[in-house]
Amino acid sequence: MIKVGIIGSTGYAGGELVRILTGHKEAEIVWYGSRSYVNQRYAEVYRNMFQIVDAACMDDNMEELARQADVIFTATPQGLCASLVNEDILTETKIIDLSADFRIKDVSVYEKWYGIKHKSPQYIEEAVYGLCEINRADVRRARLVANPGCYTTCSILTAYPLAREGMIDMSTLIVDAKSGTSGAGRGASLPNLFCEVNENMKAYGVASHRHTPEIEEQLGYASGEKVVINFTPHLVPMNRGILATEYASLKKEVRYEDVKAVYDKYYQDEKFIRVLDKDVLPETKWVEGSNYVDINFKIDPRTNRIIMMGAIDNLVKGAAGQAVQNMNLMFGLDESEGLNLVPMFP
Amino acid sequence: MIKVGIIGSTGYAGGELVRILTGHKEAEIVWYGSRSYVNQRYAEVYRNMFQIVDAACMDDNMEELARQADVIFTATPQGLCASLVNEDILTETKIIDLSADFRIKDVSVYEKWYGIKHKSPQYIEEAVYGLCEINRADVRRARLVANPGCYTTCSILTAYPLAREGMIDMSTLIVDAKSGTSGAGRGASLPNLFCEVNENMKAYGVASHRHTPEIEEQLGYASGEKVVINFTPHLVPMNRGILATEYASLKKEVRYEDVKAVYDKYYQDEKFIRVLDKDVLPETKWVEGSNYVDINFKIDPRTNRIIMMGAIDNLVKGAAGQAVQNMNLMFGLDESEGLNLVPMFP
Amino acid sequence: MIKVGIIGSTGYAGGELVRILTGHKEAEIVWYGSRSYVNQRYAEVYRNMFQIVDAACMDDNMEELARQADVIFTATPQGLCASLVNEDILTETKIIDLSADFRIKDVSVYEKWYGIKHKSPQYIEEAVYGLCEINRADVRRARLVANPGCYTTCSILTAYPLAREGMIDMSTLIVDAKSGTSGAGRGASLPNLFCEVNENMKAYGVASHRHTPEIEEQLGYASGEKVVINFTPHLVPMNRGILATEYASLKKEVRYEDVKAVYDKYYQDEKFIRVLDKDVLPETKWVEGSNYVDINFKIDPRTNRIIMMGAIDNLVKGAAGQAVQNMNLMFGLDESEGLNLVPMFP
Amino acid sequence: MIKVGIIGSTGYAGGELVRILTGHKEAEIVWYGSRSYVNQRYAEVYRNMFQIVDAACMDDNMEELARQADVIFTATPQGLCASLVNEDILTETKIIDLSADFRIKDVSVYEKWYGIKHKSPQYIEEAVYGLCEINRADVRRARLVANPGCYTTCSILTAYPLAREGMIDMSTLIVDAKSGTSGAGRGASLPNLFCEVNENMKAYGVASHRHTPEIEEQLGYASGEKVVINFTPHLVPMNRGILATEYASLKKEVRYEDVKAVYDKYYQDEKFIRVLDKDVLPETKWVEGSNYVDINFKIDPRTNRIIMMGAIDNLVKGAAGQAVQNMNLMFGLDESEGLNLVPMFP
Repeated sequence: MIKVGIIGSTGYAGGELVRILTGHKEAEIVWYGSRSYVNQRYAEVYRNMFQIVDAACMDDNMEELARQADVIFTATPQGLCASLVNEDILTETKIIDLSADFRIKDVSVYEKWYGIKHKSPQYIEEAVYGLCEINRADVRRARLVANPGCYTTCSILTAYPLAREGMIDMSTLIVDAKSGTSGAGRGASLPNLFCEVNENMKAYGVASHRHTPEIEEQLGYASGEKVVINFTPHLVPMNRGILATEYASLKKEVRYEDVKAVYDKYYQDEKFIRVLDKDVLPETKWVEGSNYVDINFKIDPRTNRIIMMGAIDNLVKGAAGQAVQNMNLMFGLDESEGLNLVPMFP
Repeated sequence: MIKVGIIGSTGYAGGELVRILTGHKEAEIVWYGSRSYVNQRYAEVYRNMFQIVDAACMDDNMEELARQADVIFTATPQGLCASLVNEDILTETKIIDLSADFRIKDVSVYEKWYGIKHKSPQYIEEAVYGLCEINRADVRRARLVANPGCYTTCSILTAYPLAREGMIDMSTLIVDAKSGTSGAGRGASLPNLFCEVNENMKAYGVASHRHTPEIEEQLGYASGEKVVINFTPHLVPMNRGILATEYASLKKEVRYEDVKAVYDKYYQDEKFIRVLDKDVLPETKWVEGSNYVDINFKIDPRTNRIIMMGAIDNLVKGAAGQAVQNMNLMFGLDESEGLNLVPMFP
Repeated sequence: MIKVGIIGSTGYAGGELVRILTGHKEAEIVWYGSRSYVNQRYAEVYRNMFQIVDAACMDDNMEELARQADVIFTATPQGLCASLVNEDILTETKIIDLSADFRIKDVSVYEKWYGIKHKSPQYIEEAVYGLCEINRADVRRARLVANPGCYTTCSILTAYPLAREGMIDMSTLIVDAKSGTSGAGRGASLPNLFCEVNENMKAYGVASHRHTPEIEEQLGYASGEKVVINFTPHLVPMNRGILATEYASLKKEVRYEDVKAVYDKYYQDEKFIRVLDKDVLPETKWVEGSNYVDINFKIDPRTNRIIMMGAIDNLVKGAAGQAVQNMNLMFGLDESEGLNLVPMFP
Repeated sequence: MIKVGIIGSTGYAGGELVRILTGHKEAEIVWYGSRSYVNQRYAEVYRNMFQIVDAACMDDNMEELARQADVIFTATPQGLCASLVNEDILTETKIIDLSADFRIKDVSVYEKWYGIKHKSPQYIEEAVYGLCEINRADVRRARLVANPGCYTTCSILTAYPLAREGMIDMSTLIVDAKSGTSGAGRGASLPNLFCEVNENMKAYGVASHRHTPEIEEQLGYASGEKVVINFTPHLVPMNRGILATEYASLKKEVRYEDVKAVYDKYYQDEKFIRVLDKDVLPETKWVEGSNYVDINFKIDPRTNRIIMMGAIDNLVKGAAGQAVQNMNLMFGLDESEGLNLVPMFP
């Protein structure tokens, strides 16, 4: 039985980790970390967990946690994980960091986009970017995994095969993404009040959202060239779900079957990536509550562009689900253990 | 492995049966019945099931189904199950009927409230009302189970212990219930369009809703007297969830502890019924996607009334989840097999 | 031109006052009070008002306001208006208080339910309860109007004619009310976050909500007896709208026409109260954005109860609209000036 | 008093025409056309209109209507207006067509994208494209106005000044648009059921939506070159609102002030177009219920692209409001008569 500690267990991503791990046969949570709710029963913070989780919330104590846990999930604000990690800890336990601290290899890029100083840049190189379908082999060997962002997971996987195969002109790539509101976290804030979000839609972080360099870096590895994109996130009045609509110019004329073959080459054996049937467009609701990424595309011969679309549940494949998938890889378990979550509809 | 056939597998309750049974270790679906989608792939009707369910929809064929299936779920409009059942079929298979056909023991009450002639009244007596927590022993022995309605499950379980113990004046009982829109089914209809339901709230079926006699009959058995109530359902702009707010006069002065003890007497060993801590009021979101019933109450000394509240997911404990719970009982399985569904939040 | 000052203009009720008064031909706002946003442009707080309202927010200054304004609306937390009012101010200006400070005639009841000491009980008697359709004559002469609460407006008007005519047993009255989330105000708070409210429904303030004594007092005047009720508010995932479902035993057997005649007696000349056609049940969406109250009822001969239903927009007839209606009466204007708001659908 | 006839008054756009015209001082509706509800009271179809509209619905009778009405709004499916219009009718009355029949000058483009034969191509040239801010002078003289589509109004106005001034490379223009569900109309259909739309987001009509050629034609006139774009509409779980996010490469390096000056050149005197303050991004909620278009932009020096954003209420500026604005122009009235609608928030 893998002993799991969670720092930040009372945010939405933390709560989803608890939901998923509760159904995981090889893992048990031994530490429900939450600075805001120390000593309060977890099931009072998330009442869905009444009579399911009996534990109380614990303060952050990385040293003690490292002793007790085989793996620590940090579902915390940027900067915290980097400030806590050190060699002693990494010797005793594994870390899956759901924040951005170890996602970006160039520390200056991280510091510029996040506006904070990185506290342990020495671990950036070692850290594995935990996009399981792309970096599976490295994840298996990792002590420290940087769990990808929600927008980035969706955006990268949707374009990856075409970037990798050189099918699209990377300088034309535009990602227009739409997210449910759980991505904004559980902090009390006026803009996230029901009456402000409901019956409303807006873009935010235009040309400045922090997930931009993360997408650029990963698609840069895939395409073998420097990638600079436009990424525009939007807030949608729904709880869960990310839909990414991506535009790029095709390098040459291609048919549906050509593109489909490329997607299949990379994804047909991937359990959690479903390339949909021709003309079926992804909808966030069809993946809700599950670890799936649904992907499809449409070629527009009028403009010679391809429109790629991907949908995920931002809290599952975009956060907690992928984190558990990473854990499964790191501990040599069946990659889908705990993740056989059938999407809930409606 | 129990072989399961579903008639009406493409309605919302049918879809939920498929979702739940997909995760059930001792059952497999051998027949996805759907008159509307014969020969169409099930995963084209419910795209969440892409790459999960491979089968195509089949027409209704009760005889063939009875041969192939150990149990048949009928998630169909009123009257259909009653028109199909006969001795041959009940000899070959078990039936769990999610419609109202066998819920009401007095056939004239059924015919009056539902406005249709009952086609096989001879099975009404034999049929067991499948409210598992109340009729567990009978369900175990049943060939034909009448799966309770969504509103009724919530309404009955919320008041049952107090009715049973004679604590409330049954003639004063009022049930004001609120339901998400999936209860209205998947048929295309103007009143259920997004723009008609969203940002809106209304009562419907006031003093005439068909779940009324079902609640009255069951609470009549509990209290040992004829029960006539007001039941008012309301439509709420959400997908899932029923909240029942129930009012009744207390027969004598009681304290919180007295009432709590009565609830605990009946429910403390029930896995799927959670009597909440003092002053914590049920919210539908905390049971979403799960088989739980969350219940609590408040005594109002000013009026000498008790206000009881119960919350369920109408598609799970209010339909498919309870149906599977009944199946588990009928086949001697662990009652919660396939139903260890952690409520999803948010 | 009536000069209007608003204290608390940046809450949701304050914002609605601004929306309505912007279209009022005889009034202009001279003071946008808001402690939280002093010196900030109003249109930065409510961007719907961009290029419509040019003013900046002002701090609370009751003396100065009294000099500049012919009428002051206080859309503020309980206690503030009572702490600011005095004879000098009431000599110079009129006050319409949207808080509860002057709604309840018995100061001990106020202090008990609101848990604060009343700072100017000497004005309670003079204050007129501004339920226009009931107290029209008194409102015309008032210096100080207590604008009714949102739940109370809906609850009282729905039952008033039957209470007044002695048609119902007041000791059996139960009000089960459902409200959109704007009633909870614009303060940042976890329970009002989108993800907490959306896809959720709950009761709150059961047997303890502060609107209870207000309903009891007014229906007490109507019926001529002491009234004690159960009032249960619920939170609904929508922005606007209150639906009250009310239950009472009929004192004697009545027909639909008898009850309809009673409603018509009181309401048929009331522009803002619409008693619906037989069997048409109120829906909050049909009054959204308007000052209407839609009312209907259903007699249940099985239980000898009547179920009354009323729907309002909580921010209009439940707050700002009624406040403007009161202003119109106090200044001898056409009662519906500024309030010819056609409900918006969808 | 202008006598108005509406064909298709019971769709959502028709309903919004009624809402707006009810508050119009110089117009009265004399004909509520609705094939689906002939002889039924209009207020039974739209109960928000109870005691506001007293008329019954009438069948389509263009000749009679032409005699009675000074202007006819056709809020009908594509093809109907074209099949009804003729010289007699245009001699007697004016027509504002809310369908696409007369929007596209090249009849072969219309017939290809809409898949129907045009019944009266002889009027296409005469018809004025009723985008008031662009074609004001022509609208004033028109007998037949083609009221722009909802997506197109928003998409065109958002990019128009930059297209007109040659600031952007038109071959790079991509429009990613998001719409509330009222745009899908009031017909009963499974995909528009509450449970299918709620908590969901999807693209549709990718590379094939009919508003594409309309945007291309108008932006072609503006830029003086043939324009071919990608236009991708998305369905959002909200009733009203369109947000268009548009991407284009800048022809040369520009500063914020340069672009702002271009927008101001075209829009600073336009009452219904609000170019927002720097860094304030449009939100659909801030224009809800009003005729405003809110626009802003962001320059991304990293990619040398400009991201333009526009928001409208699809039923007002995107349909009924703009139609009334056109009517006002055609009859020489104040352009904003009946349209001083303050956006409703929340």
